[in-house]
Amino acid sequence: MLGTMQERQLTLDHFVNRAETYFPDREIVTNTAAGLQRTTYGAWADRTHRLAGVLDNLGISAEGRVATFAWNTARHLELYFAAPCSGRVLHTLNLRLFPEQLTYIVNHAEDEVIFVDRSLLGLLVPRVGEFNTVKHIVVMDDGVPNEIPSFDGGPEVHDYEELLAGAERTEFRCADEWAAASMCYTSGTTGNPKGVTYTHRSTYLHTMAAMLADTIGVTEADVILPVVPMFHANAWGLAHAAVASGAKLVQPGPDLSPGTLARLIEEEKVTLAAGVPTIWMGVVEELEGRDTSALRVVPCGGSAVPTSLSKRFEEVTGLPILQAWGMTETSPVGSVAKVISSLEDSSEEKLDELRASQGLPVLGVELRVVTPDGEQVPWDGETQGELQAAGPWITNGYYNDERSAEAMTEDGWCRTGDVAVMLPEGYLKLVDRTKDVIKTGGEWISSVELENEIMAHPAVAEAAVIAVAHPKWAERPLACVVLRDGAEATRDEILAFLDGRVAKWWIPDDVVFIDEVPKTSVGKFSKKTLREQFADYELPGVADA
Amino acid sequence: MLGTMQERQLTLDHFVNRAETYFPDREIVTNTAAGLQRTTYGAWADRTHRLAGVLDNLGISAEGRVATFAWNTARHLELYFAAPCSGRVLHTLNLRLFPEQLTYIVNHAEDEVIFVDRSLLGLLVPRVGEFNTVKHIVVMDDGVPNEIPSFDGGPEVHDYEELLAGAERTEFRCADEWAAASMCYTSGTTGNPKGVTYTHRSTYLHTMAAMLADTIGVTEADVILPVVPMFHANAWGLAHAAVASGAKLVQPGPDLSPGTLARLIEEEKVTLAAGVPTIWMGVVEELEGRDTSALRVVPCGGSAVPTSLSKRFEEVTGLPILQAWGMTETSPVGSVAKVISSLEDSSEEKLDELRASQGLPVLGVELRVVTPDGEQVPWDGETQGELQAAGPWITNGYYNDERSAEAMTEDGWCRTGDVAVMLPEGYLKLVDRTKDVIKTGGEWISSVELENEIMAHPAVAEAAVIAVAHPKWAERPLACVVLRDGAEATRDEILAFLDGRVAKWWIPDDVVFIDEVPKTSVGKFSKKTLREQFADYELPGVADA
Repeated sequence: MLGTMQERQLTLDHFVNRAETYFPDREIVTNTAAGLQRTTYGAWADRTHRLAGVLDNLGISAEGRVATFAWNTARHLELYFAAPCSGRVLHTLNLRLFPEQLTYIVNHAEDEVIFVDRSLLGLLVPRVGEFNTVKHIVVMDDGVPNEIPSFDGGPEVHDYEELLAGAERTEFRCADEWAAASMCYTSGTTGNPKGVTYTHRSTYLHTMAAMLADTIGVTEADVILPVVPMFHANAWGLAHAAVASGAKLVQPGPDLSPGTLARLIEEEKVTLAAGVPTIWMGVVEELEGRDTSALRVVPCGGSAVPTSLSKRFEEVTGLPILQAWGMTETSPVGSVAKVISSLEDSSEEKLDELRASQGLPVLGVELRVVTPDGEQVPWDGETQGELQAAGPWITNGYYNDERSAEAMTEDGWCRTGDVAVMLPEGYLKLVDRTKDVIKTGGEWISSVELENEIMAHPAVAEAAVIAVAHPKWAERPLACVVLRDGAEATRDEILAFLDGRVAKWWIPDDVVFIDEVPKTSVGKFSKKTLREQFADYELPGVADA
Repeated sequence: MLGTMQERQLTLDHFVNRAETYFPDREIVTNTAAGLQRTTYGAWADRTHRLAGVLDNLGISAEGRVATFAWNTARHLELYFAAPCSGRVLHTLNLRLFPEQLTYIVNHAEDEVIFVDRSLLGLLVPRVGEFNTVKHIVVMDDGVPNEIPSFDGGPEVHDYEELLAGAERTEFRCADEWAAASMCYTSGTTGNPKGVTYTHRSTYLHTMAAMLADTIGVTEADVILPVVPMFHANAWGLAHAAVASGAKLVQPGPDLSPGTLARLIEEEKVTLAAGVPTIWMGVVEELEGRDTSALRVVPCGGSAVPTSLSKRFEEVTGLPILQAWGMTETSPVGSVAKVISSLEDSSEEKLDELRASQGLPVLGVELRVVTPDGEQVPWDGETQGELQAAGPWITNGYYNDERSAEAMTEDGWCRTGDVAVMLPEGYLKLVDRTKDVIKTGGEWISSVELENEIMAHPAVAEAAVIAVAHPKWAERPLACVVLRDGAEATRDEILAFLDGRVAKWWIPDDVVFIDEVPKTSVGKFSKKTLREQFADYELPGVADA
């Protein structure tokens, strides 16, 4: 009807057009084996349009999946936009998946082409024979002289730059904001990875949310270093936000060593650097003595940011780390742990607690923490429940996956699988994963909190706490403990150590000593493995009961 | 389909819920005849839900128009959300319209109820007999003891607080982002006012855009003083952005005197104050000597910000004024004249030029300047064309109005009616209105630029330049000049003064002296009236040709 608002769609071509028109000279810097390579949004946008032509020339179907197996580079950014803006779906493959998981997701997503960095051929080539739908492998030469493979009767192999040189600048085709733009598989600890599909609309809105002054506040004046990989939950929206705002982008490529990252931060005058906590543990020491005056915000997520790390970071750079929460299922930015203005005068202890929490939801996202009874938890910092999320950039299920049903509530909220409490200030605080929590006598025990207390014991290197079946209480905690080299401690010493540190009923029923805690492909504790190992473990006293 | 993103709608209830949940203690301050009144988002949100119940109780239909005739107050903010969130359409009536225009828009919009400040009854009551569809008048008592009217056989009269006290908290009903949320009529200089209808979606997105760090960057830490009226193009999005972010809001009420505004800025520690240039001309002098250290940004629009005003503002407060461009048809925020980081080191002259321009489009908005030949103008700062706009919060025509067709291009862009050039940096610079520009020999002359040059003559108080028909050149400029009291100047002196200040072919063909320039209801030059007055004016030399 005439007389209302234009039905303009929220599609990603707008970001490319804006960067090309208003910020053609802004740099995209990529760190490669051959040194820093510099391009501009003007040149990048032109190549991105030609890359759309390459996808046409390769015969990639409408809505066909375009996979990438690549580091953070300017070329990867070309793919980030050329695939969705030409009507295809970008599928970023996680370099750190187990080989069989990689094969599973390539086949499950029905990828038609894989764009791979030459330096990563060694990881990919051995699996190519197992890929059912891949017709083309396009090698992006990043200066690492791996042998270019050929697959007899398999996918055709191409050189990225040759294809680009042979393609025309092609108009974008993305007219529907509800169309799929990209997909990303979770590296879950249970079963096969699960695919999340993002739409143009969800990505556009998520990008705006990341640019809000109260979220990360990306501006054209930023110099963004996304250490978080582009295959990891949309690089937290920063690659899109850089293009949308016209900010300079520094792509770290394959070398994520602390010294290199610290040097990039100083020399490129980075204002915004984002990565998981373990990255900053190394980088912070290398930043000491460097000029970090350009830095204004360091968002961090993926796992909890230890207060000690944030403190150390503030000591060295003057900035505390900004903890943000999200997951593949939430695009990912769901909440940010900024201290709001009315809480700025809180005690140092309270400020630490707020900064170490998952914060307040960003505009557009709704979060709720629901007890097993279906009630929202009070804001008491104690009552635990399952965290559920809703909003325009939250998933409504997994791609072609029967596990979708259990991922959603009846009223359409996404079950995050996280256990959380609400602090009295309304800040969200994660305490565990729902599958790891110990459900005992109608109450929940956080395995993560118990582990932290056990790991405070000087003889303990690592500890994982799992639920073991109990005839009376349903489940009771079992502590699996790795002692430090040469250190000694007995079961009773560990349990006595916990006395007074946690509630009496939280104290594990038993302790077993193990050589190491099994890990997942991305380095998290695999409690699933431990649960299988100790499935029939008989807790003391149970046999007598 | 499962496996994509949630189909959550962009509806305004989300903003209310967010403010009520996470910022219940933040203040909304209203300056009234009885002094400052303070409430909180918690109390406000509860009243807003009860106001939705009031609209039900009054029998306002689904999608029924709910008119307001009110100053900027906390109550007006209740109406801003209760109407759209209960499925109705807010219609803000402009207090400054001519009486016959007011009657026209009430009848054209088919308003069912009008909420009116008691202090404004004098303006409204005499027209009520002409209103065809209004069933209820609700008086909001703001302490000005105007007599409460009654209308025999006409609308029922109610007291706002009594209705609210008698209503229940009512759930919001707004499930479709494409539904109309509000409407606003332009105070055009030609014909009847034209209605623009905003949707939930357009308002939601426009609010996010205003909150982007590169736009106005509204945050929860802001203290917002919208001097711009809530009936004027959504108060530039600031009322919505305040609620969405949880920022403290200072509502100035009816007293817009410079001294009062300056005092509010100091005492309430305002960080963001927005109004038209004429407001700041008065306020800046009252700010001298006051503590304005909390101020961080002063967006200004509606008409061009004189560089002298911006300079004076910076002298007093340390901040230059931030010029923004928009109109009722664009929600309104379309562009912002921030100096981007790569231009910060420009000459002082260039910085002044950029700050006095209309700037760069905000994310989401596309702007183009098109010559009569249909080409986009080069970025040369000289070639003039019509400014056209596209985007999710740009209108696609007027409500129930046959003038919609001429307002849009064939490819769906909104014709703004502005004449503009593009500066070499990509910044937009308005030079005139399309209907005021003088179209002569295939070229355009900016009436505004000519007027500015004529008004630089010391004897000239005001000048308006209009097009007069010319047999050879189609149109030629005629200068209509008001001399200062007691000052003298001849036609030839004025024309000689322009020699060297503008191009030879820009110099008007004649000068007429008038007593005053006729004005529109909102105080702009009404060149339409002058054009009618001088429609048959014979320019010198034409009779001989």
